[in-house]
Amino acid sequence: MKIEIITIGNELLSGKTINSNAQYLCKTLLKFGYSTLYTSVYQDEKKELVNGIKIALKRADLLIITGGLGSTIDDNTKKIVTNFLKIDLKFSEDIAADIEKRFGCIASIEEQATIPKSGDVFKNEIGTAPGFAFINSGKALILLPGVPVELEDMFEKHGLAFIQKNFPLKEKDFQEIINICLLPEIKIDNLLRTIDLPDDVTLGIYPSAGFVQVSLTTKALNKNEAIKKISDIKNKINLEFADYIYISEDGKIERAIHDLLIKNDEKIAFAESCTGGALSSKIVAIAGASKCFLGSFITYSNDLKKNILKVSEKTLSDHGAVSIPTVKEMIKGVFNLTDATYAIAISGIAGPSGGSAEKPIGTISLAIAKRGDEIDVGFLHLRGSLKGTRSMIIESVVNIAFGILYRKIAHNLTYFVK
Amino acid sequence: MKIEIITIGNELLSGKTINSNAQYLCKTLLKFGYSTLYTSVYQDEKKELVNGIKIALKRADLLIITGGLGSTIDDNTKKIVTNFLKIDLKFSEDIAADIEKRFGCIASIEEQATIPKSGDVFKNEIGTAPGFAFINSGKALILLPGVPVELEDMFEKHGLAFIQKNFPLKEKDFQEIINICLLPEIKIDNLLRTIDLPDDVTLGIYPSAGFVQVSLTTKALNKNEAIKKISDIKNKINLEFADYIYISEDGKIERAIHDLLIKNDEKIAFAESCTGGALSSKIVAIAGASKCFLGSFITYSNDLKKNILKVSEKTLSDHGAVSIPTVKEMIKGVFNLTDATYAIAISGIAGPSGGSAEKPIGTISLAIAKRGDEIDVGFLHLRGSLKGTRSMIIESVVNIAFGILYRKIAHNLTYFVK
Repeated sequence: MKIEIITIGNELLSGKTINSNAQYLCKTLLKFGYSTLYTSVYQDEKKELVNGIKIALKRADLLIITGGLGSTIDDNTKKIVTNFLKIDLKFSEDIAADIEKRFGCIASIEEQATIPKSGDVFKNEIGTAPGFAFINSGKALILLPGVPVELEDMFEKHGLAFIQKNFPLKEKDFQEIINICLLPEIKIDNLLRTIDLPDDVTLGIYPSAGFVQVSLTTKALNKNEAIKKISDIKNKINLEFADYIYISEDGKIERAIHDLLIKNDEKIAFAESCTGGALSSKIVAIAGASKCFLGSFITYSNDLKKNILKVSEKTLSDHGAVSIPTVKEMIKGVFNLTDATYAIAISGIAGPSGGSAEKPIGTISLAIAKRGDEIDVGFLHLRGSLKGTRSMIIESVVNIAFGILYRKIAHNLTYFVK
Repeated sequence: MKIEIITIGNELLSGKTINSNAQYLCKTLLKFGYSTLYTSVYQDEKKELVNGIKIALKRADLLIITGGLGSTIDDNTKKIVTNFLKIDLKFSEDIAADIEKRFGCIASIEEQATIPKSGDVFKNEIGTAPGFAFINSGKALILLPGVPVELEDMFEKHGLAFIQKNFPLKEKDFQEIINICLLPEIKIDNLLRTIDLPDDVTLGIYPSAGFVQVSLTTKALNKNEAIKKISDIKNKINLEFADYIYISEDGKIERAIHDLLIKNDEKIAFAESCTGGALSSKIVAIAGASKCFLGSFITYSNDLKKNILKVSEKTLSDHGAVSIPTVKEMIKGVFNLTDATYAIAISGIAGPSGGSAEKPIGTISLAIAKRGDEIDVGFLHLRGSLKGTRSMIIESVVNIAFGILYRKIAHNLTYFVK
């Protein structure tokens, strides 16, 4: 079956907003064995949207449309779609009563409680705009609200069941992701080129800032069959890159670290300068992080490096804030102030200013250690696509630091050559 | 003129990657007066991509295609597009020499240096894959690499100039964004509904976690004319929501705070618990943050709250970590340990566990103060779409805290009712 997702929104076409709804739907559909073939963005405008729906219903079996179901003046999807499908609207006492019960007597009740006379209605348990689903000439059409939390809740509670009922799968799409930290794409690509792929397995390689993901995709009746189909290729990759592969349910290296620390009942803490909390906020984004994360000292100013972490005045004036001695003293500060088993200290030049001939933008001093062991310390010199903008540098540094830490916890490996 | 952007990538359709390239291109095009009308995502597969190109060239004047120009095994765009346009390829000594000069003798040189015999070639100054541009039957086609930093650099240096040369604009598209913090969408929508819009001005309202953006879009010969067209509406909105409107070039409330602090030569520092560095990493994401940001104490564990910020054992045991007395003592700790003029302290329950009947998930204790002044302190009780997932809670808390701080710095206003 072929699936298209249309996300409506002028804010997507002006670049004001990133299309997180399309990403969420693609990812969730694939989790349940459904691949998305097309995603499109259209203006919240009748003619364009109708043309978009026509194209989609010609090439896809299921069309999911998100956005424009709210009650504000730029929300027109319900009208446009029901008009296109020639379905009349009616007022629903039940929905009106439910909205009033949860939100009081708001102005938009009548609009939100006006629903199509046929098709399924999906209750919105978070906001006010219900969703809808229709079967029309053998094709299915689902309308979901554009607010991400409302869309996600509604899709998981109602949308998926509608799809599974109307499009039961024999062969499901399976995708396995292999996460590889610290290695450059080219190295991984060179191996992948030597692999003979079976016809029904496709391979993807996706470099990110500081890590690479390899995807193996196939169709199978069940998970066991899928695993069997890809196992040879997976073993080959695992064998080649064993020390660099990390296991993470969402592909994030910080989750791999979190899971290892929880398993080992060990704790972590950080001292950050140029990353400014990016390291710690990534760990805290994981539910339950408090079981392994103690805290982080964002010592952005030199005064805080001295006063809190006890980096010496002499070290800072002799070597500068971006130096091996400074991050060494920062990491010692972390071990002194916390009970952490592992610590990371980072100080670098994220740009766009602050670079020099000796220490250009992208120069990062990094210390990573297990309490009691020698500190693994050195410079990163970010270049090429790892460098890019300030935010790219921070993203790269965080992922590389986590990669180094992961290999230390998992395999007791050091990164910097002495 | 009509513009379509096609981003190619199985990783976009599997939801592995978010479509940041489409967002970047839409945003940058609009900055130069060009509106994007369609964005689409297709598989890296010949038949689908060719169909997508046919649809695009029928409805758009300019088609920008990104992705699949690299040298790894899943990169096929160059072949597919030149084949579709019936343009032969040739080997370029110059490009090969340039790649070798920058990257050494890598395996993919021959592939990357093979370019179309006609059309423009855009040099890739960061990576290896060049970009291309063609004029075909009155329509224009641009191919850009998929790696974001390479795409951005190439588009700004070559892509925009190609577009401006081939599609000079008389009337440009202008968009003005009004940023409103802390107020709910419904309140703003109610005012917008009372405004009589001129035919050539369109209005958008975009709620985010903790703030709302209103867009006014129009076409005009120049910026002055555009400003004139929207000034009445803008004044009406400004008048109604004056205290809640913040000025920020990228719409981010932290930039508004950063700019005010720099202007006032004042400094800021934070104490974070549940936000785990999200507050500080947002400030540090701004280039030049070191001029106003001192640091943040991510005291995720109670031990760190006690040992570093000197929150008393008694306060924590009597009131808990999520309480008014705790954040009051946290903020006092920040003022004691730094020279900050302003400080924020946050401790809350971001979920999905840790909630109780008395303090459910979404309960946040917040303290915001100017040194020497009374501490503005109270609870946020996040509900509905502000609540959502853990990451949504953190995002909302950060934006609300910044909103409260902005109004304190800009207008000396307090938020919590005593």
